Amino acid sequence: MHNFLSLCKSAIGEEHVLLEAVQQAAYLQDWRQRATGKALAVLRPANTEQVAHLVRLCAQFQIPIVPQGGNTGLVLGSIPDQSGNAVVLSLQRLNQIRAIDTANSTMTVDAGCLLAQIQNAADEQNLLFPLSLASEGSCTIGGNLSTNAGGTAVLRYGNMRELCLGLEVVTAQGEIWHGLRGLRKDNTGYDLRDLLIGAEGTLGIITAAVLKLYPKPLSYGTAFIRLNSIQAAVRLLTLAKQHCHTSISGFELINQLSLQLVHQHFPQLQRVFTEASPFYVLLELSSSDTEQATYQQLEQLITNALNAQIIEDAVIANSLAQAKNCWALRESISAAQAKEGKNIKHDISLPISRIADFVTETDLALQQAFPDCRMVTFGHLGDGNLHYNVSPPSDANHDQFLIHQNQINRLVHDKTHQFGGSISAEHGIGTLKKEELLRYKSTVELTMMRNIKRALDPQNIMNPGKII
Amino acid sequence: MHNFLSLCKSAIGEEHVLLEAVQQAAYLQDWRQRATGKALAVLRPANTEQVAHLVRLCAQFQIPIVPQGGNTGLVLGSIPDQSGNAVVLSLQRLNQIRAIDTANSTMTVDAGCLLAQIQNAADEQNLLFPLSLASEGSCTIGGNLSTNAGGTAVLRYGNMRELCLGLEVVTAQGEIWHGLRGLRKDNTGYDLRDLLIGAEGTLGIITAAVLKLYPKPLSYGTAFIRLNSIQAAVRLLTLAKQHCHTSISGFELINQLSLQLVHQHFPQLQRVFTEASPFYVLLELSSSDTEQATYQQLEQLITNALNAQIIEDAVIANSLAQAKNCWALRESISAAQAKEGKNIKHDISLPISRIADFVTETDLALQQAFPDCRMVTFGHLGDGNLHYNVSPPSDANHDQFLIHQNQINRLVHDKTHQFGGSISAEHGIGTLKKEELLRYKSTVELTMMRNIKRALDPQNIMNPGKII
Repeated sequence: MHNFLSLCKSAIGEEHVLLEAVQQAAYLQDWRQRATGKALAVLRPANTEQVAHLVRLCAQFQIPIVPQGGNTGLVLGSIPDQSGNAVVLSLQRLNQIRAIDTANSTMTVDAGCLLAQIQNAADEQNLLFPLSLASEGSCTIGGNLSTNAGGTAVLRYGNMRELCLGLEVVTAQGEIWHGLRGLRKDNTGYDLRDLLIGAEGTLGIITAAVLKLYPKPLSYGTAFIRLNSIQAAVRLLTLAKQHCHTSISGFELINQLSLQLVHQHFPQLQRVFTEASPFYVLLELSSSDTEQATYQQLEQLITNALNAQIIEDAVIANSLAQAKNCWALRESISAAQAKEGKNIKHDISLPISRIADFVTETDLALQQAFPDCRMVTFGHLGDGNLHYNVSPPSDANHDQFLIHQNQINRLVHDKTHQFGGSISAEHGIGTLKKEELLRYKSTVELTMMRNIKRALDPQNIMNPGKII
Repeated sequence: MHNFLSLCKSAIGEEHVLLEAVQQAAYLQDWRQRATGKALAVLRPANTEQVAHLVRLCAQFQIPIVPQGGNTGLVLGSIPDQSGNAVVLSLQRLNQIRAIDTANSTMTVDAGCLLAQIQNAADEQNLLFPLSLASEGSCTIGGNLSTNAGGTAVLRYGNMRELCLGLEVVTAQGEIWHGLRGLRKDNTGYDLRDLLIGAEGTLGIITAAVLKLYPKPLSYGTAFIRLNSIQAAVRLLTLAKQHCHTSISGFELINQLSLQLVHQHFPQLQRVFTEASPFYVLLELSSSDTEQATYQQLEQLITNALNAQIIEDAVIANSLAQAKNCWALRESISAAQAKEGKNIKHDISLPISRIADFVTETDLALQQAFPDCRMVTFGHLGDGNLHYNVSPPSDANHDQFLIHQNQINRLVHDKTHQFGGSISAEHGIGTLKKEELLRYKSTVELTMMRNIKRALDPQNIMNPGKII
């Protein structure tokens, strides 16, 4: 082991092999501070060649590797376990934007670049990199790639997988796959890119990527809409797709309690309606058309939806400030729910056509099992992605309620599975949802996944214990 | 072997095990009639369970399987070799549209459904399945999936991989993976779907899929544009993206000779310009806006491009007939080149920013090596996909010119590789481009591909000899 660490120090410089507890601390604890692992060392290579060198050393000494970006993951996928025999391999020093190709609408970046850094670099070229997450100031693109990150712009631009054209990867053997292609069509063999994306570092280490850039929208239109049911929200989505298909960039569902908690805990945010409704939709259009044209398109849609009695009422933002207020209401839900107290979160997705029945049936089952539990239901309805969160009854002891967490997860995930949904829409599996994965995936699929893992990482040194 | 065939007959019925040469003929010869293989039998199962049963028999007897859809592939990927020890497994009898879910914008189909059948079924629901290919009346969706088909709508809607949400697959062990998910976000483990898509039947047999549907555009705008250079065409593409990003549904490059051959061999098609130019672009917008709004958007773009001196001249189609004529000019190029005589085709892609330099440099190298050879250069510039075809000098003996085919392929593909491009943008590898794949892929990538193949098909019975 002493020999291994000496070789690491020779490879990347002594100051980048962190051995002291105080130096390691930030790399060992997860973002939500729920778990802290142990590591032999935290390694901070400066470039792809150093990453490859370190992986070869780890392969030689059979040392497990936990690749880490911004360490902002939500499923305990980027911290080591308790054994202390793994190294954390931080990609943070690989933080250069290598190239921007405006004619090809692509950017080539190191894995350790912050998401916000990439967004800004695109913006400076008058272009858009559309991935947008709450943690964008801290998360790295390597982590976004390894977890196939989603966020608020998926409806329009797709997940991370759809935003990436090429990868550079260090394999479990410490070789470098130079796959940094900037091509929109390439049918030359197996899709290794999409296999590595979302593999949470278990099949190799992503060190760089070619990302797709888009023109910046020239105008936005934002509406806050009251509705009586999720069925109505789904009908509105269908109508919006028919009339404004290519312009829809946001379609967020918010239930009554979600908005109520926001107003209670963030009274500085402006109320849009005086009357309450069971559900709300935040609808955003964006386009390369004029402000006026986009406003008119939105107005026409709202008129049609009112005439068809799909919606109860709607307010179209008349200023940037009003539009920002609408989004602030949506984006404050998680924080408001946290201020309200502890709660049990689910990041699920469903076929859009089944969401209404899922919510009705699962709400009922939860009420029967846990009377007066409170549903904070919101999310990206346009993608079928719900944050289906359960808060304790208002008069309950929160810690006592959380004793039922596993039981509630089981109920919600069983229903999700039954309705053809996914138990992890955007956060991944990590170690937190590994047991759930084993419960819901078929043996056939698990076997294929295990065989691929064994084929690419026969020594099982790449983020072992994660996913599978 | 007799035993194997008896078991096949019991599994799917004697009349669906084709043994006679006359019955087998259509399954053994490729679409372009360049090669004819031999088979032990052609098997025509009726459903997924029968496919799985047959694969288990083949695994037991170690019989290679060549899965086949419409057999319209261009790279000899769906016919057997000369050994006669393989079976062709035709998916044509799996031809049911299983379900259409309009609220989820998805359709679940058997692999043997014809592409045109799927387009029509979507159309009946006032929805669009955007994949569009010359062979759509004969090709099956299973083949489209297995080759990650492209076509003319990729710029707007993506390749087959982006049009598919879930798969049902029979593994090389004859098990059924039920992955028919209709989810737009699902981060639960490795991306087996995208691995199977484009694998040309070498990792398993796709028996069904969940496809994405889109709203039908309500209006179209079509322009035929004269330009002096490919550089200008790339500048026009950038301008079009800025001003009409979400509306661009076609951006086709056509060089002078391409159009000249079309007019020569299809004189019934109307000429758009009296003057000739080195290059032309066929630009199409489509949107959920009105005809008038789309026309104005296109007109504004053309005006801007003329003012910026990017283009020489443009004609906007004033009627559906004129728009159809523009597309007919584009779509007649291959046929016109064939009427002109034999030629050497390349289906390549490049970063859009490098296409102009690639063409200049490769045209020059070809002229030096093969004086007076004639370039028929056209393709989906918006995707970076060029059909970069070489016709013999007008006075040459065509058969003698074709002797240089390998040398010309080498020159073109070497340049493509040097410019960061792909030697197969949309047609795949099959057996035709296998040697080329070995030449241009790195050992690291080939090793990963081989390890995956071995992991999922250890007996090497799934379309052996294809891709890798």
